[in-house]
Amino acid sequence: MPHQGESRLARQIAFLVEADKLKRVLRQSHITGKQRRENSAEHSWHISLMALVLAEHAAAPGLDLLKVLKMLILHDLVEIDAGDTFVYDEAARKGQKEREERAAERIFALLPAEDGSALRAVWDEFEAHDSAEAKFARALDRLQPLLLNYANEGSGWQRHGVRAQQVRGLNRIIDDGSPELWRYASKLIDDAIRRGYLDP
Amino acid sequence: MPHQGESRLARQIAFLVEADKLKRVLRQSHITGKQRRENSAEHSWHISLMALVLAEHAAAPGLDLLKVLKMLILHDLVEIDAGDTFVYDEAARKGQKEREERAAERIFALLPAEDGSALRAVWDEFEAHDSAEAKFARALDRLQPLLLNYANEGSGWQRHGVRAQQVRGLNRIIDDGSPELWRYASKLIDDAIRRGYLDP
Repeated sequence: MPHQGESRLARQIAFLVEADKLKRVLRQSHITGKQRRENSAEHSWHISLMALVLAEHAAAPGLDLLKVLKMLILHDLVEIDAGDTFVYDEAARKGQKEREERAAERIFALLPAEDGSALRAVWDEFEAHDSAEAKFARALDRLQPLLLNYANEGSGWQRHGVRAQQVRGLNRIIDDGSPELWRYASKLIDDAIRRGYLDP
Repeated sequence: MPHQGESRLARQIAFLVEADKLKRVLRQSHITGKQRRENSAEHSWHISLMALVLAEHAAAPGLDLLKVLKMLILHDLVEIDAGDTFVYDEAARKGQKEREERAAERIFALLPAEDGSALRAVWDEFEAHDSAEAKFARALDRLQPLLLNYANEGSGWQRHGVRAQQVRGLNRIIDDGSPELWRYASKLIDDAIRRGYLDP
């Protein structure tokens, strides 16, 4: 971009143009209709919309919705360098943390130092899974591919031979952020088995 | 989805699954790298990230950032029915308002009534361009395709024969939300002409 210089705005813009690359990172879920795989940028939008609509179901009352949205908008940026790691791929998940930490170092450093630190702190909080906001954000991040897989009659699960036990095991943490959404997800998994979308 | 019944949650989920269709709505900009056209869902994510990073440049001090994010996450949902309207296509812009109003009626009505009204009010506020939050949100919505077009050496402008005068005219409203971002955009347009990305 022009006028790179040292201005705050020029560095912010450089970061935002780099962030565009998240649109090239493909996930294992298909968008509804199955035309193509979903990318991590549009996934991030979808779960942000979910936060607006589903906030009332968070486990913790008085959730800081702005914080949740910041987490959801930022949470996958590291995939620009680290790639998307399929939650059911145990081999790929080894080393994921280190890959993503290195990515965070590079990507947030594109920003002016104070901005980069502030956004990095939000990402760190999401990754730590400790706060009420992080737990709810993670619940949405896990629930969304279940909704897509169900809508697509299990296409993503079947392509990878994922079974019901894995789906239940890896998504049970939805319960930490929202017992109500986990009850819903559990029924959805049961129903997916009944309909033959998911192997029991 | 299962358990549609009349439960609040079932209706919220039905809305969220319908919203997935925004990923199929293509815009006229290419993502950086020019591999493909951008869709409206990932565009909405990108401008939400821009809001997090660029909030300090808003014309109004003390901006309600949560409101801005709600607007940006929701603003294009009507395109599921109404399609994306290219800002430089004057013929297509005729009737845009009516198409989008009809779409809003249908789409927000998928939600429980009180949720639908609340989100519709946010969308109406964005469309009215009156509040400080709406003006800043609109500034980001206009600045983002300029950044993509510049990064792509003007590919979107050239494909449609868009000229500098049109780009300046239609994006001047960035100034209402952020004089600083409009100064930046103006320099970017000048630079795009100098580099031959945009016809003077």
